Amino acid sequence: MELLKNLNWRYATKKFDTTKKVSNNDLEKLKEAIQLSVSSYGLQLYKVLIIENPEIREQLKPVSWNQNQITDASHLFVFCNYKDATPEAIDGFIKQTAETRNLDLERLNGYGDFIKEKLNEKTPEEKTSWLKSQTYLALGNLLNACAELKIDACPMEGFEPDAYNKILGLDKKGLNAAVIAPIGYRHHEDHTIGQQKVRKPFDLLFQEI
Amino acid sequence: MELLKNLNWRYATKKFDTTKKVSNNDLEKLKEAIQLSVSSYGLQLYKVLIIENPEIREQLKPVSWNQNQITDASHLFVFCNYKDATPEAIDGFIKQTAETRNLDLERLNGYGDFIKEKLNEKTPEEKTSWLKSQTYLALGNLLNACAELKIDACPMEGFEPDAYNKILGLDKKGLNAAVIAPIGYRHHEDHTIGQQKVRKPFDLLFQEI
Repeated sequence: MELLKNLNWRYATKKFDTTKKVSNNDLEKLKEAIQLSVSSYGLQLYKVLIIENPEIREQLKPVSWNQNQITDASHLFVFCNYKDATPEAIDGFIKQTAETRNLDLERLNGYGDFIKEKLNEKTPEEKTSWLKSQTYLALGNLLNACAELKIDACPMEGFEPDAYNKILGLDKKGLNAAVIAPIGYRHHEDHTIGQQKVRKPFDLLFQEI
Repeated sequence: MELLKNLNWRYATKKFDTTKKVSNNDLEKLKEAIQLSVSSYGLQLYKVLIIENPEIREQLKPVSWNQNQITDASHLFVFCNYKDATPEAIDGFIKQTAETRNLDLERLNGYGDFIKEKLNEKTPEEKTSWLKSQTYLALGNLLNACAELKIDACPMEGFEPDAYNKILGLDKKGLNAAVIAPIGYRHHEDHTIGQQKVRKPFDLLFQEI
């Protein structure tokens, strides 16, 4: 099975080869995989920054636990959730759905109202958590797409979101850095290459009912 | 590219064929894909229930917005995060890492302390959000594995976690139902088959820097 083969090939890359870059052609495929991610109601309330600029990555490194992957990788993906699900965003989604599927907008508006109503039931903390968690589905697709293309990646939560938001000007766009992933190609001297994966056994991870 | 082909094949299945069951052989592969999911520090602080039992699914349906997929699908996957990252769980992970990789436990304990320290910096709300979001990475892998095996799935947040926790006895195990996915095979009468996907265009979804 391709996915299992790819998942076994990949690992959280600690040391990237600074001389190798991901091609534009591959970047387009990675973007497509992210674009096709599922999200709650299909809203996709996030934006993904793809940072190649070395100066900006130098600025991000000290607020990323000084991890070398930030600057050594080919590109840095920053998954940013919108801080709120605004009525405008939901209306926009409903409008796009009507246009894409050639449906009557009037008939879809009830669904938009339903989404708004459901989101209003969430506390602010629940809403923030919900918005952030959607980006993890997009991250997962990035990692799987990378693995199929034999591109290395290192998903990371070890960074300071507030500092990222400031450096990248996310605050004024209503965005928040949720999770990041440098991607590129493993350095042959990465001492973690080939390390056995540590995973819970089936009997601890699953329960069949 | 296989993943893109699979992502385009899949859709959030609204009507399952009640006569078709996912084979045990395929279920094992799905479990493997979930097991290989990335998670923060590699901790995998969740458990996945795979529910086939019809009576339990009948009980879950009314607390799942009465969605038919709960009972009609072949199996219902319930991704449950642990409500806390206990020191014991982290110690267990460190021990397993030492054993799996044949490393000196003493040398790894510092890393365990580092994880505990970092987690202590999170507010209770942040910790809950962090624990839940890890299950979305596992859900993503389930969906991608299903798509490769031409198994249909419908990721869902439309259910009442508290009721699930009660019915499934999760509370007393320190677990919380975070996100669910019925899986099986699409019914040929599902009116949503072949609907055009609604996705944000690249220029709204990505920013290259």
